[in-house]
Amino acid sequence: LRRLKVPDVSIGRLAVYLRALGELDLKDPGRRYISSSELGALAGVSPTQVRKDLALFGEFGKQGVGYDALNLHRELEQILGCDRRINVAVAGAGELGIALVRHNVARRHEGGRYPFVMAAAFDVDPEKIGTVIAGVTPVYHSSEIPRRVREAAVKMGIIAVPPSEAQGVAELMVQGGIMAILNFAPARLALEPRVQVVQADVSLELVRLAYYLKG
Amino acid sequence: LRRLKVPDVSIGRLAVYLRALGELDLKDPGRRYISSSELGALAGVSPTQVRKDLALFGEFGKQGVGYDALNLHRELEQILGCDRRINVAVAGAGELGIALVRHNVARRHEGGRYPFVMAAAFDVDPEKIGTVIAGVTPVYHSSEIPRRVREAAVKMGIIAVPPSEAQGVAELMVQGGIMAILNFAPARLALEPRVQVVQADVSLELVRLAYYLKG
Repeated sequence: LRRLKVPDVSIGRLAVYLRALGELDLKDPGRRYISSSELGALAGVSPTQVRKDLALFGEFGKQGVGYDALNLHRELEQILGCDRRINVAVAGAGELGIALVRHNVARRHEGGRYPFVMAAAFDVDPEKIGTVIAGVTPVYHSSEIPRRVREAAVKMGIIAVPPSEAQGVAELMVQGGIMAILNFAPARLALEPRVQVVQADVSLELVRLAYYLKG
Repeated sequence: LRRLKVPDVSIGRLAVYLRALGELDLKDPGRRYISSSELGALAGVSPTQVRKDLALFGEFGKQGVGYDALNLHRELEQILGCDRRINVAVAGAGELGIALVRHNVARRHEGGRYPFVMAAAFDVDPEKIGTVIAGVTPVYHSSEIPRRVREAAVKMGIIAVPPSEAQGVAELMVQGGIMAILNFAPARLALEPRVQVVQADVSLELVRLAYYLKG
């Protein structure tokens, strides 16, 4: 597998291709091959874009036949690092944090190969500490983040705390060894550059959409 | 105000600049001007990027002085269409939908100029219909989306229903006149191209982050 510096937007699209393939019945013998047009239609991008994105990682397709769907699915899982279990911790067991954990647990129950396991949640509210979300995810005090994260081999963090607390929990996560953070708090995190942060900011998305309403 | 075809990524960054400026004390006389370096540092982008993005819309800065912060804030609000109230409807009054409404109501209570008003929520659960979220947002049956959306002059929709129901509520929203949708359901929406859709998909973001964990 070649490792190149790949644009983040391509990685985002590979994630969409992986999901689109995952929704097909890959065991159906009539479904063995999928063309870049078909995959593009499922993912909402052009066939050319599909071919360009996949070409960044190797030669997966056959001229005139398309991609072997099952094989491509497996390759994309590997490329994206989703071919093994990834433990995730959620800071903030408020409504958003709980909704994220429950959603994830439901996704795993649906079957398929969903790699993310909500291993722990953290909060500072004494009423929440000691509870278990969705029957599987224990809630600990936020001060325990470094220790619990390390013990449970958590690699990814989700931040769902108020903006004023985001930087603090992010630093505790990094202390525990977390290197990738999805941040729902409307606050910019200042962390070492090797920590990958994705900002999931509802207010910003709404502002972005507002631009298109002006007509 | 010039209207050009502006890249979506620039619009996203303008939203970040607007928020960064909004967090400054714009009434502070010592804060009258802000340089592209300062604004870039607050937004996490380079000064060159700041200047390029703003240049798409006109000449806001003064050589060697920077941007008039209050004026730039006002201009960005106008450019992004956030200088007036925008009514938003949420389809799905489950945990995620409720969390989104409460978060938004809290943002408005914080003060500042936050344009989004959660005017209505929709669900199919009889126990939810007739309730009011956060003291302000009534929950109606989803079948009422077109009428309620039209009556309340709702321009923007948020989808927080299960994936199998996403397309249905999206179509009802468009029937009611909604032209911009933020979709939290992991389902691709097939709508008229003039409807702007932003996909806010937690699972996809996690997959994207997983790529960077491979190290």
